[in-house]
Amino acid sequence: MTRDRPPSPFTREEYLDRLRKVKARMAELGLDALMIVDGSNITYLTGYTGESSYVAQLLLIEPDQEEPLIWVRKQDAAGVRQTGFMQPTRVIGYPERYIGSATENGFDVVIEHLRASGLARRRLGLEYDSTSYSNVNKFLAGLPKAELVDAGGLVTWIRLVKSPREVEVIREAAAVVDCGMLRATEVIRSGVRECDAAGEILAALCRGTDEFGGDFVVAPAMCAGTRSATPHLSWTDQPYRRGQHVNLELGGFRFRYAAGLMRTVSIGPPNDRLKRIHAANMEGMEAALATVKPGVLCGDVADAFCKVTERHGFIKDSRCGYPIGINWLEPTASLKLGDRTELKANMTFHLMLGMWMDDEFGYVASETFVVTPTGVECLTRVPRELFVVS
Amino acid sequence: MTRDRPPSPFTREEYLDRLRKVKARMAELGLDALMIVDGSNITYLTGYTGESSYVAQLLLIEPDQEEPLIWVRKQDAAGVRQTGFMQPTRVIGYPERYIGSATENGFDVVIEHLRASGLARRRLGLEYDSTSYSNVNKFLAGLPKAELVDAGGLVTWIRLVKSPREVEVIREAAAVVDCGMLRATEVIRSGVRECDAAGEILAALCRGTDEFGGDFVVAPAMCAGTRSATPHLSWTDQPYRRGQHVNLELGGFRFRYAAGLMRTVSIGPPNDRLKRIHAANMEGMEAALATVKPGVLCGDVADAFCKVTERHGFIKDSRCGYPIGINWLEPTASLKLGDRTELKANMTFHLMLGMWMDDEFGYVASETFVVTPTGVECLTRVPRELFVVS
Repeated sequence: MTRDRPPSPFTREEYLDRLRKVKARMAELGLDALMIVDGSNITYLTGYTGESSYVAQLLLIEPDQEEPLIWVRKQDAAGVRQTGFMQPTRVIGYPERYIGSATENGFDVVIEHLRASGLARRRLGLEYDSTSYSNVNKFLAGLPKAELVDAGGLVTWIRLVKSPREVEVIREAAAVVDCGMLRATEVIRSGVRECDAAGEILAALCRGTDEFGGDFVVAPAMCAGTRSATPHLSWTDQPYRRGQHVNLELGGFRFRYAAGLMRTVSIGPPNDRLKRIHAANMEGMEAALATVKPGVLCGDVADAFCKVTERHGFIKDSRCGYPIGINWLEPTASLKLGDRTELKANMTFHLMLGMWMDDEFGYVASETFVVTPTGVECLTRVPRELFVVS
Repeated sequence: MTRDRPPSPFTREEYLDRLRKVKARMAELGLDALMIVDGSNITYLTGYTGESSYVAQLLLIEPDQEEPLIWVRKQDAAGVRQTGFMQPTRVIGYPERYIGSATENGFDVVIEHLRASGLARRRLGLEYDSTSYSNVNKFLAGLPKAELVDAGGLVTWIRLVKSPREVEVIREAAAVVDCGMLRATEVIRSGVRECDAAGEILAALCRGTDEFGGDFVVAPAMCAGTRSATPHLSWTDQPYRRGQHVNLELGGFRFRYAAGLMRTVSIGPPNDRLKRIHAANMEGMEAALATVKPGVLCGDVADAFCKVTERHGFIKDSRCGYPIGINWLEPTASLKLGDRTELKANMTFHLMLGMWMDDEFGYVASETFVVTPTGVECLTRVPRELFVVS
């Protein structure tokens, strides 16, 4: 039965260790149980990587239970049993009739369980920020005797410091995204349709290396010409033209852990503004990376970058990055002026530079790095060039 | 400035027509303004396709304003101006300092505007089901004199019936997904790494046809061997083996409109169970499609399918499909026993068959179809085969 399980990157002991950290925090908050609905947090605590969080699913953590209990729709239960670390009995597939219903969903089944188990009278954490208003109200109405507490961020903040094995997985994701970016510099050419270049880049992000492949993708941002003025558009089916530059934001994935990488590719010789903004950003990136070590504040990294680029006349008003891990961005700390989160060894960040200057012009560059015991190591390795192609 | 705008598939008049339908529904509900936060609904009403809904953004519709007003973070404002239909003055980029803040977000800026404009004392619709509990409470606390009304589903239900031009766009997306599936039948082979096949398939989903390319992707579900027992896993970097079958769910995209397509590929001769479930599903699919015409209920389509497959001894307990459009699934009607939504011409559905039988075995097949004035037209055209490869 288990022979087609995807190779698991983490031991059972690692999952139990993650759960121990969560349970310690639950004890501090006096929680009798914790209900996790965020898909990335569920992946972190179970290993399940299915794309099913568009319907109700919930992971229940109780202090005296070694393994959590999970509810997913019936058709996804086999996916949890195959990719999650728990015993099959800890996976509950709720009936398919709850899908596409106007009045009920899978959380009704969870509420029934909580009532039957006695937890309905206890102090329960729920991720309010990942739960719709209607669904929080479903829990409040269904559990009138429970004391519901917002546990948003509880698991996400624990994810901030990675295990050694997590860093290795992100290192592999970084090697994958390097492959995609190098391919981009080969296929972006004047006269090539943007969609054909995108296809080659995505293929490289899947192939990865001979030793390991990418096992997930998200649509890259590929903003060409005046669309470089904005960061979050994909590609078109129009051909690239000489004189355009292309701002690329690619992601490599291993077991759902992401590494991000941004570079700017100039089709034909870059103009003076592009050359100047690239030089300023590269000098700023060096300054930012030189700042990174345990004990430094997130805000200090941004400050080091901004001081340099401002001297060159370029103001960056957006943040300089964020923690990166499962499914890319972790919504906790920011590399942003004033952020007082202290860097610790084994935190991983997407140092996301780039500036969107006006309605016609922008530039990007980034690295994915890990904080080491003494400083920083960039996991992405593509040369920090403004790539010029024909 | 506008020369690198992606080609727009819809006229300004079409967007205004969509807004007229929304405003008519607002009038029925007595709403003085409507606040839209769902990313797909924003794309529907503006044309903006940026991947930025992971931060606060909001579209405000007022009955006496021809164009809506939109708030996005500053760096995304150029993207809205380039891909949206509105005048630049209707796009508000809120300051980047609201990103990554523990206490504030872009909705605080919207609330300030509503207070200044007098709307803070009126009856306002908000999509509660697309808004986190914390953010709905932000609106409730910030607008104590307003009457806030849950407007979840208002726009989504209007999207259910497509315009002729929308159907044409989905027809193009269907041609794109056909290309991806045909490529899958060429590259899935014993000994090929799953990630290499995935790369080729994604490349085909980008390349599309000579006339038009795919302009977005989501990671396909590609469940091989015993992973066929579950629908929502992606691929691994392990090689395919003879005796496995692969359940594929691919999406083609045009201007963010999706067409879905599922097929099963057998590596080596299919076993008897696979042949029987395929035959039952194909006969069921014919019966389901033969049922489709305006006036028929969604539940009738599912009923036609299930009657056939049950006669063959195969029970499908999950729904038989859902409306498809911007960003794939539209959460409104379902092709599900008991769903009393009436089919109308120009509705588009992903008729999503497939059965996940136990922890080791599943099968999939689907088509994307449009309801015509007299019946049905399948937009996806790949042969309805159980593909057998070596």
